[in-house]
Amino acid sequence: MAQKTGWAIGVDLGGTKIEVARVNTEGRLEQRILIKTDVKGGPSAVMSEIVTAARELRKTAATPPEAIGVAVAGQIDEERGIVRFAPNLGWHEVPLATTLSSVLEVPVILMNDVRAATWGEWLHGAGKDYDDLICVFAGTGIGGGVVSGGQMLTGCTNTAGEIGHMTIDLDGPPCTCRNTGCLEALAGGWAIARTAKAAIKQEPAAGAYLLSLADGELDHVTAKLVGQAMQEGDPLALRLMNDAARALTAGAVSLVNAFNPCRLILGGGVIEGVPELADKIREGVMSSALTTAINRLEIVRAELRHDAGVIGMAAFALRNGAERKRRTAA
Amino acid sequence: MAQKTGWAIGVDLGGTKIEVARVNTEGRLEQRILIKTDVKGGPSAVMSEIVTAARELRKTAATPPEAIGVAVAGQIDEERGIVRFAPNLGWHEVPLATTLSSVLEVPVILMNDVRAATWGEWLHGAGKDYDDLICVFAGTGIGGGVVSGGQMLTGCTNTAGEIGHMTIDLDGPPCTCRNTGCLEALAGGWAIARTAKAAIKQEPAAGAYLLSLADGELDHVTAKLVGQAMQEGDPLALRLMNDAARALTAGAVSLVNAFNPCRLILGGGVIEGVPELADKIREGVMSSALTTAINRLEIVRAELRHDAGVIGMAAFALRNGAERKRRTAA
Repeated sequence: MAQKTGWAIGVDLGGTKIEVARVNTEGRLEQRILIKTDVKGGPSAVMSEIVTAARELRKTAATPPEAIGVAVAGQIDEERGIVRFAPNLGWHEVPLATTLSSVLEVPVILMNDVRAATWGEWLHGAGKDYDDLICVFAGTGIGGGVVSGGQMLTGCTNTAGEIGHMTIDLDGPPCTCRNTGCLEALAGGWAIARTAKAAIKQEPAAGAYLLSLADGELDHVTAKLVGQAMQEGDPLALRLMNDAARALTAGAVSLVNAFNPCRLILGGGVIEGVPELADKIREGVMSSALTTAINRLEIVRAELRHDAGVIGMAAFALRNGAERKRRTAA
Repeated sequence: MAQKTGWAIGVDLGGTKIEVARVNTEGRLEQRILIKTDVKGGPSAVMSEIVTAARELRKTAATPPEAIGVAVAGQIDEERGIVRFAPNLGWHEVPLATTLSSVLEVPVILMNDVRAATWGEWLHGAGKDYDDLICVFAGTGIGGGVVSGGQMLTGCTNTAGEIGHMTIDLDGPPCTCRNTGCLEALAGGWAIARTAKAAIKQEPAAGAYLLSLADGELDHVTAKLVGQAMQEGDPLALRLMNDAARALTAGAVSLVNAFNPCRLILGGGVIEGVPELADKIREGVMSSALTTAINRLEIVRAELRHDAGVIGMAAFALRNGAERKRRTAA
């Protein structure tokens, strides 16, 4: 049975690094440990990395954590605490929660990383005190979370929020998901890089500056470099980012009209790299969405950045950890 | 204070006709009165039409109705029982609920017609016993309702569900809503008619049969006639309906990926006129949406057809009438 000790551990388990943090009930991140993910070592190596970090956080605290929340990029079975599929880790059906819980003797909860970040922004970030909000995280991929009527939407099989795979262009390019014209296929980091590479090939003169930023290697062109070139005034990069902004605006209009949020929260690497995107999206939504749907709408940037996942997981664990544990035990 | 008498009156107030029905707690429509809407007479004439019909239903019942629910095509302030704007009726800020309630001495509840129909399908139609569903009604316009986690989504300013105004084609044609490329602008009844007229003008030979169905009057071409021509094998009509199906599929994929419903329920005049559309949409979604989102998805046709609104409103009134009345009185 979990004790009320006023803090929890949030873990953000990614394919390159693991963030393990001590977070208090106000959502303040009090200590952070960053580890390189030992993907090659498999689940047992990664779990022992998490256990070591959690024990280190425990050492400096007077009391044990109430619970541990782990955010994972992938498909999660929250009920059973299993990572069903995590492509970046190469994991299939890993019982992460029960294993960590039995070693650390604390309730452990798993969640998809994007939903965890939405919990973070909702409870302690840009969505605080709002009952109706949508987070859009545009990074390499595009994902999101929806809170409506004070409830985090999960859907029929716990996959609600795959807003990167809304079709916004009937004749658009192929996505990685088997569909075409998805928001992500036009404005996700990988898609911006794909379009940039094609443009550089087709218009070598226009693409010269962008290519030089990538040390002359077409394969090294990334969305981040496109953002950088744009901010330095490169016309091709500006055009590419304007296209991405147009796609993101169309996606945002779809979301605003369909869900009618009070706040639309924009985050992720693409937005953080080019903050002007948020202004363009705001302007586009305010001039294109239904007037009845934007009465009280605010479009803002995410606040917790890279810590949204650990703060969200810890906050969620503090809210639900003990309860979930009892249900599992029953 | 409302009595538990086991029945309620559902009203579907449209721009051409009013349906007033007696509905029991099982959602069974026991008696129906259809009236032509006296739009020219203004709110007072229309209200007196509703009052007369309600009194007629009352006459044949042993007990008074518990409540009256009125579905209106337009923007509704549910809390205050006001029709804020109903374009088909030409109404602005009409206090319909309080007026009807004071004359009939029964609690009266208002709701947007599409959301009312969603309540109908949820409580007594194709969505019965599901906690996660979406209704898509494709008629002249396209609207819908979303139930997620057992909750009807309303949004920040009560406009959630405007799924006809999701952008599905970045370079698509203008919509009536000020945006371009909306689902409705490609697959709503008015848009199908618009595209048909343009095609007939551009290809008179191909459009000859369709035009003949409209008695040679281009202005008389409707989506209904396009559906009819398609079913009679007309190649142009088939192409037009295939385009509409493609747009509806893209919209359905967006909804399935974003909300992850267990049931996607398709209704409205366009679907009822061409039932094959539901099969095409099902096939398209099952082959294009995220595999994780369609695990348990069923795509079905709406069951209550024209009665979804009155059944939904009556059912909602039976559920919430007394409670709402107390809150209003307090």
